[in-house]
Amino acid sequence: MIGCPACEYNTFREVKMGTEIKIRGYHTDLYQHVNNARYLEFLEEGRWQLLEDHLDLDAFMGDGFSFFVVNINISYRSPARVGDTVLVRSGRKKIGNKSAVFQQQIVDKFTGAVCIDAEVTFVIAGTSGRPLKLEGELKEKLLQIPLFDG
Amino acid sequence: MIGCPACEYNTFREVKMGTEIKIRGYHTDLYQHVNNARYLEFLEEGRWQLLEDHLDLDAFMGDGFSFFVVNINISYRSPARVGDTVLVRSGRKKIGNKSAVFQQQIVDKFTGAVCIDAEVTFVIAGTSGRPLKLEGELKEKLLQIPLFDG
Amino acid sequence: MIGCPACEYNTFREVKMGTEIKIRGYHTDLYQHVNNARYLEFLEEGRWQLLEDHLDLDAFMGDGFSFFVVNINISYRSPARVGDTVLVRSGRKKIGNKSAVFQQQIVDKFTGAVCIDAEVTFVIAGTSGRPLKLEGELKEKLLQIPLFDG
Amino acid sequence: MIGCPACEYNTFREVKMGTEIKIRGYHTDLYQHVNNARYLEFLEEGRWQLLEDHLDLDAFMGDGFSFFVVNINISYRSPARVGDTVLVRSGRKKIGNKSAVFQQQIVDKFTGAVCIDAEVTFVIAGTSGRPLKLEGELKEKLLQIPLFDG
Repeated sequence: MIGCPACEYNTFREVKMGTEIKIRGYHTDLYQHVNNARYLEFLEEGRWQLLEDHLDLDAFMGDGFSFFVVNINISYRSPARVGDTVLVRSGRKKIGNKSAVFQQQIVDKFTGAVCIDAEVTFVIAGTSGRPLKLEGELKEKLLQIPLFDG
Repeated sequence: MIGCPACEYNTFREVKMGTEIKIRGYHTDLYQHVNNARYLEFLEEGRWQLLEDHLDLDAFMGDGFSFFVVNINISYRSPARVGDTVLVRSGRKKIGNKSAVFQQQIVDKFTGAVCIDAEVTFVIAGTSGRPLKLEGELKEKLLQIPLFDG
Repeated sequence: MIGCPACEYNTFREVKMGTEIKIRGYHTDLYQHVNNARYLEFLEEGRWQLLEDHLDLDAFMGDGFSFFVVNINISYRSPARVGDTVLVRSGRKKIGNKSAVFQQQIVDKFTGAVCIDAEVTFVIAGTSGRPLKLEGELKEKLLQIPLFDG
Repeated sequence: MIGCPACEYNTFREVKMGTEIKIRGYHTDLYQHVNNARYLEFLEEGRWQLLEDHLDLDAFMGDGFSFFVVNINISYRSPARVGDTVLVRSGRKKIGNKSAVFQQQIVDKFTGAVCIDAEVTFVIAGTSGRPLKLEGELKEKLLQIPLFDG
């Protein structure tokens, strides 16, 4: 929870709109755009924050559950450049029997231009390391993650 | 061209089988597997080598052509770990009117286990920065890139 | 300038205490610690923020000035791990005739434990690409960067 | 051991001269130079190869020994750019009672221009995680690492 120290106004809802990242020199490459691989770090950052905000992540991992990404489908729409500020927006897309899908988008904070659209398919492994069926209590937990709000 | 300094045997064909990468500590993450984002650097490495081997890349870029990746669809099959040696194998999949697709695979050099399957869709931009039609001389050049050899 | 949207309280001073980074899986390596190279990205992040806060950086770079790092001396004191939150604290150490030095520290936000001590020596290049003497107006600008506050 | 498949000429000594890295787009940043942080990955790559070539690294780590870097002092001499090929050259500088120092250099393969000079101070931790005295058998092992050959 992030609040104003003077008036205790809760800025939480705004912050939840997305993980904010300011583009720096080290994020960019030859073309002075953010490098293709770097965006996957931005997406990972967004997913950790999503999970932190909506799951008791320490308890979840303490119970021996792990997230394993099995597919990422990422479209590069418009390049982000040094000095831009982007928001990583993340949510649940669907939950299948064995795998589930996050939807993520990276947008320019000021213009709203879409830089990245991505779908990230994952499984949940238990202590054995094997993917678990997404049912019962485990599915309930995943349903706590809000739907992507396009 | 890589040759043996003693007998001038051309080892080039073997080298072309793939870009070889030994997995080091800095490639891996929390789970002691190569990190999701890092694989995209491995794929980029493989594409540069593919293009160097089959295009006159300096002339191509000197003519004002640039490759822009518009989509990557990457499946994480089995994790690579510190000490593993992987090969990045890359080739052409198809050439459309406006975009074309590379197919890439990262395999364990010794076991042959597939770590990564990926399709990388790209466009070619000219000096204006706008995507060009893939026809005529430009298409001829792209056809010099060999088909992915599964 | 970052303000509360309800009461316009200026939270700027707090934010200036340091660039805050939460450690994620992709920051860490084999040993489940933040990787040695990654800390240099954290330090670069801290320097960009320092310069943004105290120089008119766009004007400075628009005038053709560039910062070039010529030496980094970094000591790894205690490892940061997934879930830790660190602050990157940055300031000026000294300004010589041709080069100047930033001092930076990365500390655990909650325990205050020092993870990293670093000194970063840089020169300023002009449009010719050559290092400039740090005198006159240029030195005045650099003196706007506050001393490191240990 | 790397040999020619035609004549079995041992190219090992040449390869040992340094770890070879071709600079790609994803290595570079805003200024179209290799990014400061990336060089630390190149240095780590060089150290792993040095250790592999001269220690039985699997046995060493199997015995519970770990290398921990405690300081890196890196000087950026001249920038490497896309298309350059660099060699990472690594060796032992000195072995003290509690810590030891690697010396490393990154040079342009063709011009010999020095890009990077670095000294990397490390300790050896045992299974307890605490630094060990560098004496007896442990020191003998470290002495197998050749002196840096400037």
